[in-house]
Amino acid sequence: MLALTMGDPAGIGPEVTLAAWRALRGELPFVLLGDASLGRAVGSVAEAGAVFADMLPVLPVALAAPPTPGRPDPANAGAVIASIERAVRLALDGEVDGIVTNPIAKSVLKAAGFPHPGHTEFLAALTGRAGHEVMMLAGPGLRVVPVTIHVSLRQALDLLRTDEIVRVSRTAAEALRRDFGIARPRLAIAGLNPHAGEDGHMGSEEATLIRPAIAALRGLGIEASGPMSPDTMFTAQARTRYDAAICMYHDQALIPLKTIDMANGVNLTLGLDLVRTSPDHGTAFDIAGQGIADPTSLIAALRMAASIARTRRQA
Amino acid sequence: MLALTMGDPAGIGPEVTLAAWRALRGELPFVLLGDASLGRAVGSVAEAGAVFADMLPVLPVALAAPPTPGRPDPANAGAVIASIERAVRLALDGEVDGIVTNPIAKSVLKAAGFPHPGHTEFLAALTGRAGHEVMMLAGPGLRVVPVTIHVSLRQALDLLRTDEIVRVSRTAAEALRRDFGIARPRLAIAGLNPHAGEDGHMGSEEATLIRPAIAALRGLGIEASGPMSPDTMFTAQARTRYDAAICMYHDQALIPLKTIDMANGVNLTLGLDLVRTSPDHGTAFDIAGQGIADPTSLIAALRMAASIARTRRQA
Repeated sequence: MLALTMGDPAGIGPEVTLAAWRALRGELPFVLLGDASLGRAVGSVAEAGAVFADMLPVLPVALAAPPTPGRPDPANAGAVIASIERAVRLALDGEVDGIVTNPIAKSVLKAAGFPHPGHTEFLAALTGRAGHEVMMLAGPGLRVVPVTIHVSLRQALDLLRTDEIVRVSRTAAEALRRDFGIARPRLAIAGLNPHAGEDGHMGSEEATLIRPAIAALRGLGIEASGPMSPDTMFTAQARTRYDAAICMYHDQALIPLKTIDMANGVNLTLGLDLVRTSPDHGTAFDIAGQGIADPTSLIAALRMAASIARTRRQA
Repeated sequence: MLALTMGDPAGIGPEVTLAAWRALRGELPFVLLGDASLGRAVGSVAEAGAVFADMLPVLPVALAAPPTPGRPDPANAGAVIASIERAVRLALDGEVDGIVTNPIAKSVLKAAGFPHPGHTEFLAALTGRAGHEVMMLAGPGLRVVPVTIHVSLRQALDLLRTDEIVRVSRTAAEALRRDFGIARPRLAIAGLNPHAGEDGHMGSEEATLIRPAIAALRGLGIEASGPMSPDTMFTAQARTRYDAAICMYHDQALIPLKTIDMANGVNLTLGLDLVRTSPDHGTAFDIAGQGIADPTSLIAALRMAASIARTRRQA
């Protein structure tokens, strides 16, 4: 059993949740923490399991205002946050195998006083793992792990550090073993500059920051190759040679992932004590409530969370 | 008729040239400017046309030393450069419809005193168009035009300027009309930062540099949209909405292009008075002479040069 948070109730969360339930009702039980009107209110995870085949089970989280699709309301920020907190509690108590989060609108939560940059950092804080979180995005045939994330490109260059490349890579290698059952994970470490700097002709960070990180990782017994030329490391052929690409900045990771397969990408948080995935899209206020939102990524996120939980149990 | 330069004779140029001749002998005539032992020496472009169906025609450019595959020899730098100069002369004189260049090794030419960063700048200088050159990479379903190219990522950030975005975009729009026959080209202008800065939360260049460029382009009657979020603008669906993506740095352009289709990418130089394409790969000294080099990109480059020349003639 998985716990699914409500996300912003004015976004596409409610409709993709219902579509995911229809797709998975015979296969993979989950319980929504949110608006009870979307399914059947239940009092416990056990009751949710009994209900799932017939109705979407909901552990109710009361909204402060009725949601209007496309119009986020800061009045509901408290409920959005409570849904996440309750899902984490269920996971830490062992009542669910993992949590899947519907998209939130950071600007709406920020306006309501939410101090975290996003889901990932909030979850790390809630589980006592602040500073240990790592984001992985996984799609069919490609897993990417950005070392720097939601900062400007210039700031990413300023923040890039050898010890951070090592930390993120170690967490990724551990997750590939524990969550994906890969006994000897192969990491491809991206360069930062065109052609990975071409022997220093186009940038020096490969020599000063990235090669030392690769050496340190190898010293730890981790199979790390690179620095790879960023433009050729994501071809179909190149992708067969590694289990995850460690990327230096957001778009180096996200461009290839979304270009290869926009719909099936899943966002995973590594480095926490619980299993957490989410769809790789936002609230999509512009199309919310029209019934055209694609539930593919949420379904993939639910399947991946269940698969990781299974792999961990079998270890 | 197209002119094909020899490129570095120790690279994969000779073998992909022969493979391209075999693939295109019934279809698309070209003449090699290089080592006469690769085919039949001819004295003129007209003679090359008569020979093409039976043998690869070669306008001889003498090498200073016999080439050894995989071992570039600076002694041959003069011949490599002469081949390019002669191709340009034939094109400017109207004897050929365009030129296609085999890969050169910049470091080898540099060691021999060649002062240009690469082919593109050399061709611009030879044709009196220095500072007007623009690089486009075109593959099946995607054309990309980087505003900054072979510099470190940090330098790319420092070099990015509104007037340069405008210059490159104008040249791209003109080429889409003149060379690709697109009456009303649609340009997608990429953002620089994650999510195109997300309203300034992750970088300000979208507001300070890119939006003013888009406004200027629209003022010139060019259909320019953006700044687009870099990670979602290259999906199959998004690509149907523009004819070329204007990219802020090398890997923002090259990662999606090569990830989508490594083999069929073609490099075009825009902004010159002649038609010039090249395969989108290097000399590949590591596999030269083994007969395993893939001629797909050179064949695509020859076909694209011929197609552009045809489109220009019909205009």
